[in-house]
Amino acid sequence: MELVQTGIPGVDEMLGGGIPKTSVVIVSGSPGIGKSNFAMEYIYNGVTKYDESGIYLTVEDVPKNIIAYANAFGWDVEKEIRDEKIAIVAQPIYGVDGKTKEYSSGETLGEAIERINAKRIVLDSVTLFKYLFKDDMSRRVNLLNFIKQVKDAGCTTLMVAEQHESTANITYLDEHFLADGMMLLFWSRHKEKNERCFRVVKMRGVKINPDIRPMEISNTGVVVYPTQVPLSLTDK
Amino acid sequence: MELVQTGIPGVDEMLGGGIPKTSVVIVSGSPGIGKSNFAMEYIYNGVTKYDESGIYLTVEDVPKNIIAYANAFGWDVEKEIRDEKIAIVAQPIYGVDGKTKEYSSGETLGEAIERINAKRIVLDSVTLFKYLFKDDMSRRVNLLNFIKQVKDAGCTTLMVAEQHESTANITYLDEHFLADGMMLLFWSRHKEKNERCFRVVKMRGVKINPDIRPMEISNTGVVVYPTQVPLSLTDK
Amino acid sequence: MELVQTGIPGVDEMLGGGIPKTSVVIVSGSPGIGKSNFAMEYIYNGVTKYDESGIYLTVEDVPKNIIAYANAFGWDVEKEIRDEKIAIVAQPIYGVDGKTKEYSSGETLGEAIERINAKRIVLDSVTLFKYLFKDDMSRRVNLLNFIKQVKDAGCTTLMVAEQHESTANITYLDEHFLADGMMLLFWSRHKEKNERCFRVVKMRGVKINPDIRPMEISNTGVVVYPTQVPLSLTDK
Amino acid sequence: MELVQTGIPGVDEMLGGGIPKTSVVIVSGSPGIGKSNFAMEYIYNGVTKYDESGIYLTVEDVPKNIIAYANAFGWDVEKEIRDEKIAIVAQPIYGVDGKTKEYSSGETLGEAIERINAKRIVLDSVTLFKYLFKDDMSRRVNLLNFIKQVKDAGCTTLMVAEQHESTANITYLDEHFLADGMMLLFWSRHKEKNERCFRVVKMRGVKINPDIRPMEISNTGVVVYPTQVPLSLTDK
Amino acid sequence: MELVQTGIPGVDEMLGGGIPKTSVVIVSGSPGIGKSNFAMEYIYNGVTKYDESGIYLTVEDVPKNIIAYANAFGWDVEKEIRDEKIAIVAQPIYGVDGKTKEYSSGETLGEAIERINAKRIVLDSVTLFKYLFKDDMSRRVNLLNFIKQVKDAGCTTLMVAEQHESTANITYLDEHFLADGMMLLFWSRHKEKNERCFRVVKMRGVKINPDIRPMEISNTGVVVYPTQVPLSLTDK
Amino acid sequence: MELVQTGIPGVDEMLGGGIPKTSVVIVSGSPGIGKSNFAMEYIYNGVTKYDESGIYLTVEDVPKNIIAYANAFGWDVEKEIRDEKIAIVAQPIYGVDGKTKEYSSGETLGEAIERINAKRIVLDSVTLFKYLFKDDMSRRVNLLNFIKQVKDAGCTTLMVAEQHESTANITYLDEHFLADGMMLLFWSRHKEKNERCFRVVKMRGVKINPDIRPMEISNTGVVVYPTQVPLSLTDK
Repeated sequence: MELVQTGIPGVDEMLGGGIPKTSVVIVSGSPGIGKSNFAMEYIYNGVTKYDESGIYLTVEDVPKNIIAYANAFGWDVEKEIRDEKIAIVAQPIYGVDGKTKEYSSGETLGEAIERINAKRIVLDSVTLFKYLFKDDMSRRVNLLNFIKQVKDAGCTTLMVAEQHESTANITYLDEHFLADGMMLLFWSRHKEKNERCFRVVKMRGVKINPDIRPMEISNTGVVVYPTQVPLSLTDK
Repeated sequence: MELVQTGIPGVDEMLGGGIPKTSVVIVSGSPGIGKSNFAMEYIYNGVTKYDESGIYLTVEDVPKNIIAYANAFGWDVEKEIRDEKIAIVAQPIYGVDGKTKEYSSGETLGEAIERINAKRIVLDSVTLFKYLFKDDMSRRVNLLNFIKQVKDAGCTTLMVAEQHESTANITYLDEHFLADGMMLLFWSRHKEKNERCFRVVKMRGVKINPDIRPMEISNTGVVVYPTQVPLSLTDK
Repeated sequence: MELVQTGIPGVDEMLGGGIPKTSVVIVSGSPGIGKSNFAMEYIYNGVTKYDESGIYLTVEDVPKNIIAYANAFGWDVEKEIRDEKIAIVAQPIYGVDGKTKEYSSGETLGEAIERINAKRIVLDSVTLFKYLFKDDMSRRVNLLNFIKQVKDAGCTTLMVAEQHESTANITYLDEHFLADGMMLLFWSRHKEKNERCFRVVKMRGVKINPDIRPMEISNTGVVVYPTQVPLSLTDK
Repeated sequence: MELVQTGIPGVDEMLGGGIPKTSVVIVSGSPGIGKSNFAMEYIYNGVTKYDESGIYLTVEDVPKNIIAYANAFGWDVEKEIRDEKIAIVAQPIYGVDGKTKEYSSGETLGEAIERINAKRIVLDSVTLFKYLFKDDMSRRVNLLNFIKQVKDAGCTTLMVAEQHESTANITYLDEHFLADGMMLLFWSRHKEKNERCFRVVKMRGVKINPDIRPMEISNTGVVVYPTQVPLSLTDK
Repeated sequence: MELVQTGIPGVDEMLGGGIPKTSVVIVSGSPGIGKSNFAMEYIYNGVTKYDESGIYLTVEDVPKNIIAYANAFGWDVEKEIRDEKIAIVAQPIYGVDGKTKEYSSGETLGEAIERINAKRIVLDSVTLFKYLFKDDMSRRVNLLNFIKQVKDAGCTTLMVAEQHESTANITYLDEHFLADGMMLLFWSRHKEKNERCFRVVKMRGVKINPDIRPMEISNTGVVVYPTQVPLSLTDK
Repeated sequence: MELVQTGIPGVDEMLGGGIPKTSVVIVSGSPGIGKSNFAMEYIYNGVTKYDESGIYLTVEDVPKNIIAYANAFGWDVEKEIRDEKIAIVAQPIYGVDGKTKEYSSGETLGEAIERINAKRIVLDSVTLFKYLFKDDMSRRVNLLNFIKQVKDAGCTTLMVAEQHESTANITYLDEHFLADGMMLLFWSRHKEKNERCFRVVKMRGVKINPDIRPMEISNTGVVVYPTQVPLSLTDK
């Protein structure tokens, strides 16, 4: 089984090597936990470490902000876009009328996959993606079509998912059952401290480490510590 | 009463010998716990240990992946398929239009049962199976028809079920009440450790061991330890 | 007030003697707890200990299985059926089309009551019985009609009810409020052990013992220990 | 303000003397706690201790059973019915077609109030009473009409209410907000013991004791101990 | 900012002086906690201590009962009604047909405000007020109209609200968000004791004391102890 | 990335400098916690400390009250309105008919942005804003249009959000997922004390301090203590 490495420190070790190729993987977590950083790092590492092009499909933000957020970690996404290694396919939900040109990237996902020969996809976020459609049935059909499209194209995909509850417990939705894998990013509170934690919940085809590990947003991106224990969990 | 052995280490001991023939049994659990491995091991053991053919009916994945996941445990499912001992009947939900040939196995469940003279069936998963239908009534009718079909054919069946809650508590649904037996696979957390646990909740016609036991995904498949106690439960 | 004894060890003692004649009593519990065994033991004891004929009305299973499960406890139900002391009225919900002859007993409840002069009735289960009908109103009407029918016939009735929650707490439904009595069978967990517990919640017309008692499924059937305390509750 | 005494040992003391005349009071509790006994004792005491006639309006049971349950406490309700001091107005919900004569008392509430000059009314239970109507609006209108009818007639009324949750917490419904008073009867569990408890939650116009007190079903009826503390609550 | 004093012992001290004029303030609490007493005391104090007329608008009870409840605290509301200092505008929900004259006060809120030159209003209760209307939209429109009417008239208003949960936690509804202030009256239980507690949750324009204080219903009305600590909370 | 400072003591330090320009940020919290004060202080500081004009868009209150509340902290908002540095765009929800002139500011948001060249916007509150629309779809469309309008205008925006639960846990809604940042203001209770707490949950593009800090409403406005620990959390 061919494995796709995320290149994010500590993550591949937790995954038992990486993500099986053509998997669709949920990256689920509360607001502010670092899901979008995690997802962009996966794309950027694909280009710079593994020579795989990648597409960041966003319904949340505009390209210039996404580029700016990446710059803060020293990732020169703009260069990779010029070199046709990365494409940002953007259709922010608050620009749904499409009139304001800067909101839309003017390229479909399919066109972008073909143009840059993409091997990695991020959908940020599947939660807002579903908001684009009126009823449950059309949401499900469009989600299934998206999954089919990226699998047919041979891509390995992360779908960012917002978690509705602020607690550690999570109610699983359609997107969790449809995915081949799931990673959970969550806040663990101890007294006044909020600590980022990481857990691989599921990954078909590899032997994962299911334990909870501390995670940080460093100056160079997301870091998971696969041999450490979250401080907030030591006396719980 | 004729008993069908799973052959999974520790499981038949917990079941009081095995599963009464023609039973329909729920294998319920959270994402990533190992339900699909458990189900395939049941099919593979049927062929290799008990000379019973089996069908793996999936609405979750494509045959080549299912075969690859099994290979990781050293189970040569491909050989058994060639020998007409195992059949994978696949109709992944994300390939519902059926146009892409690789998604569908091109054979109905009834045809496969007859062709290989199947005695064991797996439905992976009843949760996504229900998603195929538009309303509650047609879901129930199709589920009842499936149960009737496999019972009429004299098969003993596992139905994999996704658990919506991440907690230990479980809300029972239609499929739980319709089943003759139920096995629960769940994560038990102690501090930062997530430990796999196994429990037989119900099995009509045999005397089960209702206690909770540790479970592992080893290199050769699922293992339940019927005489051990989960570490995560010893000081709770 | 005339009391109907269950004959199940420990149960009549908890009931203050037995069940007032013509009562309709809920036997509620989680999957696998032993509700069907409890109910069949009530019918079998009626015939063998108190000379009262009884009917086991099932929407869950086929007669041959029900007979086999009883045999495992040494109860020769088949003989009592031949002697017209017991009747199994079966219409399993998964055989709703009625075409497959073995699913249906070909006799209505009313016909069976008259034929064997039944004094005891079991409905296994009221939960699936309600699934037979499309909407809440027709479910309620059919349930009320069933209750009226058995009361008019002078029978004393147990209605087996599936409990949707796996926790000790229970949300009361229509059937609980319509019943004259209620017995609760539930799992009490302590660390890795799951212990069967018994509680009489309600019985109109008698003075019950409302405390929780340990219950077991022995080789000869259900046993309640009215003078013991569940181990799992001693240090909670 | 004129107070109506219940005559149930301990209860009037908790109420600050009794129930203000023409009040409508909810008696709420879990199945089996003793609500119907409590309510019949209120009616029977009215006749035998305070010379006030009373009506027991039931949608749950038939008169002969209600009389039998009362007899078990030594209350000769049958005599009071003959003397036109008590009337049982019965329309059990499972006899809704009214064809079976024994189910219905053949007299309306209004006719019974006038015939025996009733001063006390019991509705057992408001929960099933609401089941008689198809939608929320007609339930509310009929409940409001009932309250208006008994207030206009100058009666003081208890409405028995089933509590849907088995826990101590209670979700308040229409009937709770519409009532002038509320008494709560509930089970308090300590280890394996279930202890009956009593609490006056609300009574407009009098100064209540809001604390929780132990309650028992003795051989002569309900007893509340206004100066004792429930054992189950002493070390919680 | 002009402040309106409640005159209820301890309350104005918790409010930082009083309620800003023309505010609409929720008084929320469980059944029986003393909300109606609190509200009437606010009206009665307005007349007797601050020379401000007030209206008690009730959809819960009839004027004669409201007057009687007030008399129990020594408040001669009847005299103030005769002197046109207090008006009771009553339309009890159980007298919705309006035929029975005693249920309705025969005067609209607007007429009463003008007649007695009202400066204080009580709506008892906003919960039942909403029940008067068929759907959410008409409930909201009528509630908004009520708020606008009393603000336009320059009145300072308390809206009594029933709390649906018996627990300390509260789910905020429309009326909570629409109000300028909120006071919470709740039961705090310690073992068998139920203690009344008071908390100012919100008051726009003043600096409140947000801590929890004990409250009592004395012989002369509601008393809050702003410098004491609830006994039930000292060892929690 | 250009940062907009709130100027509220302690807040910018928690935000890692400030809010990235053109962000839309949720300020979420329970009733009474100080959200409106927080929001007005952001606008007032914009004018007086950073020379940026600001608009306070309210659907909750009338301008004169908003000005009065600000005066209590020594903020002369009236002067800034005269100098066209601040605009209050008011359309209180209880004045929806618009007839009463004082309720409406007679100016649209777009007109106000242009007139005073606004760089900062407050929407108080997004919760009631959504109440203005009849169904979920029109609520979402209007919310998306608002977000687009303020982003297109280059403004940095706070949206005040009411939290429905009184507990620390929060269920995330549309507005939380649509926002670029989120700050949480909540009550932390210890025994009888209610302490204000502050937490930055999310802010795209900056490195936040995710820990919980004490917050106070002082005589001069909101103060967050970025180096202190909430007393109520030290022994939890």
